Amino acid sequence: MIERERRFLVESLPDPLPEPKQIEQAYVSTGPASVRVRRTGDQHTLTIKTGSGRNRNEIERDLEQQEFQAIWDTATELRISKRRHDIELDDGHTAELDLYDGSLEGRRLVEVEFDSDSAADDFTPPTWFGREVTTDNRYTNSSLARYGWPD
Amino acid sequence: MIERERRFLVESLPDPLPEPKQIEQAYVSTGPASVRVRRTGDQHTLTIKTGSGRNRNEIERDLEQQEFQAIWDTATELRISKRRHDIELDDGHTAELDLYDGSLEGRRLVEVEFDSDSAADDFTPPTWFGREVTTDNRYTNSSLARYGWPD
Repeated sequence: MIERERRFLVESLPDPLPEPKQIEQAYVSTGPASVRVRRTGDQHTLTIKTGSGRNRNEIERDLEQQEFQAIWDTATELRISKRRHDIELDDGHTAELDLYDGSLEGRRLVEVEFDSDSAADDFTPPTWFGREVTTDNRYTNSSLARYGWPD
Repeated sequence: MIERERRFLVESLPDPLPEPKQIEQAYVSTGPASVRVRRTGDQHTLTIKTGSGRNRNEIERDLEQQEFQAIWDTATELRISKRRHDIELDDGHTAELDLYDGSLEGRRLVEVEFDSDSAADDFTPPTWFGREVTTDNRYTNSSLARYGWPD
């Protein structure tokens, strides 16, 4: 239920990139509890996150396609479209590299999830990672959906 | 997934009233998709409703107690407390009579859910029901939580 995640800007793209999966997501709420629906292929998910920074509470449930659609249809202005490349790092962690489309086209972020606080503490970012933005709430996807890229 | 519900003011209270159940609920979002957590006894539920009026889309999932708590703690300003009396009507339907506490103390509403449009069309409210407010969005619980009772 606790999601431990560190988020970074991207200095340069690994080459070659593995095949991405296409992700569409929309926010019902971007408040202290963010409520998101996401479609990845034929999988539909509802996610509620509370808290901020590295460790957040995360509640996740599967949705039926028509449940996703009903919510998606109401969240017309808070949508994000991105391609996610899952990249295995040398230390065994997985980097989730997100390349944004739509109004955020050309923007990119990379996230890594951890099983424990110590693993998160000990993580050494590879050289292609840029500045860490984990505690900068402007780089959460809910904030990007609402306010766009922080320039 | 479609919730068919008609909502009424309450002209007078049936006597005697059956034992109520205590309901605490809080809204994460009161927008076009309302997102609510509810605690009834030891049961915790997440409900998302879209649409307005008599027929609304409803998505419901059980929550763990700690999941409920995490969301509840963020929704400090949009809470509703009420006692619900389930009253069997002569026609076989169940009237859910809600007596509100807290900032809505003394207010009351009654709702009836239906299995079909025709059952909802054909329903004859008992004499203790008051004016119907099904299509008056000010009387949804999400609106009551945000704006209070419409005076």
